[in-house]
Amino acid sequence: MIKVGIVGGTGYTGVELLRLLAQHPDVKLEVITSRSEADVKVADMYPNLRGHVDLCFSVPDVDVLAACDLVFYATPNGVAMKQVPELLEKGVRIVDLAADFRIKDAQLWSKWYGETHACPQVLNEAVYGLPEMFREQIRAARLVANPGCYPTAVQLGFMPLLKNKLIDETRLIADAKSGVSGAGRSAKVANLLCEVSESFKAYGVSGHRHIPEIKQGLAIVQGSEVGLTFVPHLVPMIRGIEATLYAELNDRGAGMSLDEIHAIYSEAFATEQFVDVLPLGGIPETRSVKGTNTCRMAIFRQEGSNTLIVSSVIDNLVKGAAGQAVQNMNIMFGLPESRGLDQIAVLP
Amino acid sequence: MIKVGIVGGTGYTGVELLRLLAQHPDVKLEVITSRSEADVKVADMYPNLRGHVDLCFSVPDVDVLAACDLVFYATPNGVAMKQVPELLEKGVRIVDLAADFRIKDAQLWSKWYGETHACPQVLNEAVYGLPEMFREQIRAARLVANPGCYPTAVQLGFMPLLKNKLIDETRLIADAKSGVSGAGRSAKVANLLCEVSESFKAYGVSGHRHIPEIKQGLAIVQGSEVGLTFVPHLVPMIRGIEATLYAELNDRGAGMSLDEIHAIYSEAFATEQFVDVLPLGGIPETRSVKGTNTCRMAIFRQEGSNTLIVSSVIDNLVKGAAGQAVQNMNIMFGLPESRGLDQIAVLP
Amino acid sequence: MIKVGIVGGTGYTGVELLRLLAQHPDVKLEVITSRSEADVKVADMYPNLRGHVDLCFSVPDVDVLAACDLVFYATPNGVAMKQVPELLEKGVRIVDLAADFRIKDAQLWSKWYGETHACPQVLNEAVYGLPEMFREQIRAARLVANPGCYPTAVQLGFMPLLKNKLIDETRLIADAKSGVSGAGRSAKVANLLCEVSESFKAYGVSGHRHIPEIKQGLAIVQGSEVGLTFVPHLVPMIRGIEATLYAELNDRGAGMSLDEIHAIYSEAFATEQFVDVLPLGGIPETRSVKGTNTCRMAIFRQEGSNTLIVSSVIDNLVKGAAGQAVQNMNIMFGLPESRGLDQIAVLP
Amino acid sequence: MIKVGIVGGTGYTGVELLRLLAQHPDVKLEVITSRSEADVKVADMYPNLRGHVDLCFSVPDVDVLAACDLVFYATPNGVAMKQVPELLEKGVRIVDLAADFRIKDAQLWSKWYGETHACPQVLNEAVYGLPEMFREQIRAARLVANPGCYPTAVQLGFMPLLKNKLIDETRLIADAKSGVSGAGRSAKVANLLCEVSESFKAYGVSGHRHIPEIKQGLAIVQGSEVGLTFVPHLVPMIRGIEATLYAELNDRGAGMSLDEIHAIYSEAFATEQFVDVLPLGGIPETRSVKGTNTCRMAIFRQEGSNTLIVSSVIDNLVKGAAGQAVQNMNIMFGLPESRGLDQIAVLP
Repeated sequence: MIKVGIVGGTGYTGVELLRLLAQHPDVKLEVITSRSEADVKVADMYPNLRGHVDLCFSVPDVDVLAACDLVFYATPNGVAMKQVPELLEKGVRIVDLAADFRIKDAQLWSKWYGETHACPQVLNEAVYGLPEMFREQIRAARLVANPGCYPTAVQLGFMPLLKNKLIDETRLIADAKSGVSGAGRSAKVANLLCEVSESFKAYGVSGHRHIPEIKQGLAIVQGSEVGLTFVPHLVPMIRGIEATLYAELNDRGAGMSLDEIHAIYSEAFATEQFVDVLPLGGIPETRSVKGTNTCRMAIFRQEGSNTLIVSSVIDNLVKGAAGQAVQNMNIMFGLPESRGLDQIAVLP
Repeated sequence: MIKVGIVGGTGYTGVELLRLLAQHPDVKLEVITSRSEADVKVADMYPNLRGHVDLCFSVPDVDVLAACDLVFYATPNGVAMKQVPELLEKGVRIVDLAADFRIKDAQLWSKWYGETHACPQVLNEAVYGLPEMFREQIRAARLVANPGCYPTAVQLGFMPLLKNKLIDETRLIADAKSGVSGAGRSAKVANLLCEVSESFKAYGVSGHRHIPEIKQGLAIVQGSEVGLTFVPHLVPMIRGIEATLYAELNDRGAGMSLDEIHAIYSEAFATEQFVDVLPLGGIPETRSVKGTNTCRMAIFRQEGSNTLIVSSVIDNLVKGAAGQAVQNMNIMFGLPESRGLDQIAVLP
Repeated sequence: MIKVGIVGGTGYTGVELLRLLAQHPDVKLEVITSRSEADVKVADMYPNLRGHVDLCFSVPDVDVLAACDLVFYATPNGVAMKQVPELLEKGVRIVDLAADFRIKDAQLWSKWYGETHACPQVLNEAVYGLPEMFREQIRAARLVANPGCYPTAVQLGFMPLLKNKLIDETRLIADAKSGVSGAGRSAKVANLLCEVSESFKAYGVSGHRHIPEIKQGLAIVQGSEVGLTFVPHLVPMIRGIEATLYAELNDRGAGMSLDEIHAIYSEAFATEQFVDVLPLGGIPETRSVKGTNTCRMAIFRQEGSNTLIVSSVIDNLVKGAAGQAVQNMNIMFGLPESRGLDQIAVLP
Repeated sequence: MIKVGIVGGTGYTGVELLRLLAQHPDVKLEVITSRSEADVKVADMYPNLRGHVDLCFSVPDVDVLAACDLVFYATPNGVAMKQVPELLEKGVRIVDLAADFRIKDAQLWSKWYGETHACPQVLNEAVYGLPEMFREQIRAARLVANPGCYPTAVQLGFMPLLKNKLIDETRLIADAKSGVSGAGRSAKVANLLCEVSESFKAYGVSGHRHIPEIKQGLAIVQGSEVGLTFVPHLVPMIRGIEATLYAELNDRGAGMSLDEIHAIYSEAFATEQFVDVLPLGGIPETRSVKGTNTCRMAIFRQEGSNTLIVSSVIDNLVKGAAGQAVQNMNIMFGLPESRGLDQIAVLP
């Protein structure tokens, strides 16, 4: 049994981790910390866990965490980087669900996250936890930086095009849409039902923190810098991300039929358990992956156009957060990658 | 392995059965029939089942069904009663998720369902599949009539009060609210998102088919006729039923403290795995049981009032349909009652 | 032109008042106060008002308010009672949309609102602003206590039954459901989309502040105390209240046909522009009154039962708050009662 | 008073026309036709119109329609083209809210709408009813082709860029999102609340009928063909369209600051009552235009990028259908353009 701790478990990624770990056959949940909710029973805060999780939240305690094999950080950005070095030293392995270790360039990180990085020396060691890109590195990692939600959907969608050099990589466009849970569980007027229900809008249009993260990942796939316009939108629903990706086919790509490009996509993810490429003609819906760790995608091309279109959907709290974190844990501890991640989406 | 067939699997109870059975360790799904969708892959219609269910819908065939140990009927009312006698004769056990066998009085059934009952002789044999009432009879049953969604929430909520003779049973009131999936998957203007979203209304106020079903069950608990006013409402959400029950405490009940009545409720369901009585002060939310087989309830009393209030919630498609059907199957085949029913609600 | 001021206009009742008053042909909006948003343009906070309202929020100033003919208080409970006496003295007429002047008994008020009443001497003068009950008193009133949202729907629904002595008034039941806007615009986790969407629950079941308000009003209609059980519920939608009312017909009522009782309802509201009794068989939907000042209702009786059922719907922010306040203003200033209140609900 | 008829008034654009025309001070509604609902009171089908519209639906009758000054066609595509020539001959002016007269090239129309055009000779006379492009022609038109919902939001958003030659017009991208009412009121499983709520997806990705309409309009603005990729998406809400537009700035455009481009947008729509360009930094929400005839937009540019981003929102049933039709009527009959169109969005 893997002894697991969770730091900062009161948010939506925290409760989602609990849902997944509570039924993971190889995990023993040792501790879940929350300063503000210390001594509150987890199941009192999240009644769906009644009968499944008996733990109380507790005040963070390094010694207790140090006794774990793995600690998940489900804290706001900027917390993990102040605590992780000490835990690493004590031999604990870490998966950080926040953004602290996602960007390799500490200065770039500071620019987007508004504070100096607390442990730039650790950045190099951190492995970006997108298994479809870095599975081998994750296996041995002491510290995994779990990808952001949008970056997961966008990078997976562009990957085969870049890897196969089919597109003009300088002008990628990603028009992404997310359910409201992506904004977390904090008490903000902007996320009240009465503010976001029955409405739709873009946000962060002038620049969003996920841009440097996506560009960093895609540059690795491409082997050189990429140009990207990324616009997120808020959908009046709880869970789900859909990213519609637009890329101009280069001569090589334009010379291929859609069937051929589809074959490349299918091939690219043939051995991936959590990426499902739909047959041509299919359109992914976010509800088809709700509560599951699947990224489902499809590709399209309009008549007389050289633009390839990809639609990629995930559950932002699962493949976009807690599920991918568990997938990373499974890889780190040599378990089958889908252990504890075989839920079927509840539909309707 | 129990060899299982599903007749009429294209509706919402059908897909929910598939979701539950696909991961049930003791079930082998042999056949799922649908005349209109014959040869369509189940996973093409319900993309959440991609990778989990490989079956195609097929035209109903008695011989194929007769080779099953158990057949679930997830058909509209009036279908099962025409086919079940033949299957019973061939030794197949049946759980009917429709209303054909719920009401013992064939004339009363005809009055509410608008046609003559096709096999009144079988009605007596059918066991009403509310395990919390009829577990022993279910164990041996050849034919189980799976309860309606509202009747499940309402009967479980009133049971301890009636069994312990705490209330005036002649004037029960049940004000119930259901998500839209209760209306099924048929193409009706009334259930379009644009018709039911951002609105709330009562329906069937002058009389609803679930009234005779609830009264029949409660009369058995009480040992005599009960009086019931039942008003269902439509909630702009997909899943979930909440029933707020009002009962006038009789002298015996009025003499008890709320703590004492709460103790009676806790005791009544102490050994039930799928009924969760909240501590006093708690309020059940439908989302806490979404996708699960739990009925969660709480009791209340307002100052200076002799009215006991119960709030009871279920997922109409699980404890109110497919989940309870699987629970009944587990009982019928001697399996642990919660086998395949240990999902945690996805929240938020 | 009536010179109007609004105190505390940043909440949902405030913006709704602005929407209605901005197009009221006899109103000149002089000032809208908000300490926290002082100098912010109203239309920057509420973009639907761009091009319709040019005012900025301003710090409250007694002299500016004193120059108004009428001041609406759209403040949290407990604010108006501290300021109203001074404005009354200066000759300003007041409509308070909060609860400060709704309950005549200062001690009862304190019990439910948790503080001592600041001006009990003014309570007697305040007129309860339900025009269908107190139109004449409102005409001359200096201070109108605008009713609560639930009390409006519930009192209007029970009125004809009590006035005509058709029911047992000692055991009224009101099962009410409200959209989330009833909880206001404050930043609370409990009202986040992710917390209330796709779920349904009761709340305040052990006792809600609107109980004494409803009982006070119904007692006046009945001529004696009434007994009431009132349970509110939260509906995953923005606007709308539906109240399902249950009353036991007494001998007189039980002797009447539903047609006769319907005639009594129609007669009771025949001259009321904002109460619409549906023909028998009709069922009111909250969406049919969204954005309008209408209370729409219907009555029902189930076979073999002596319980009369009323379903009554309003828009909680209009007839349940800002619209009724404007209706009261129209009455106070001798205008046609529907002036500025002739909107048609946007449907779908 | 303008004598107005509506053909095919049972759909969502029909009821929206009724809502707007019922309160239009210069309109007398003479007739509303529906074969299937003949003799049904309009207000029985749409309870929001109780007390506002007394008409019944009636069987279409050419003589009755011929007595009108203006007839709105709110019929499915392909109906108006078969009837309009006769009415034109009788001197009736027409606004067709369907697609029959939007595309000048009858062959292109046939390709996308799947049937031969019934009156290609009339196509030339029809004026495309986007007032911000063709106001003068609309004034004198006998037949106005009311634009599609997506084309309205997309064309208005791109107009200033093309008119001022700021972008590469060969690779425009429009990622558009619509509420479900855009799919109309027909009974289809795909539009049930349980199918579209809590989910998000693209649709029509391989090619949508609005592409040729948008390209035709933009080509007129540009003075030459444009290249366009257009992808619509379905948002789980009732009303509203948001279109996020991406265009590559050409040398001229790239040389301008965002302030300068913003000034061009403000100038372009300075005299337009129904186009509202937000100050830089603002982001349009669909709810801010719900129920109103406004198109609200904002522009953006990300650091280091030459892509200009426009976000443009409308209410698909108002500026995208019925409201724009009334705006066209006002222009055709010499009325102030905003007559009957001054509603304020209901928010929240």
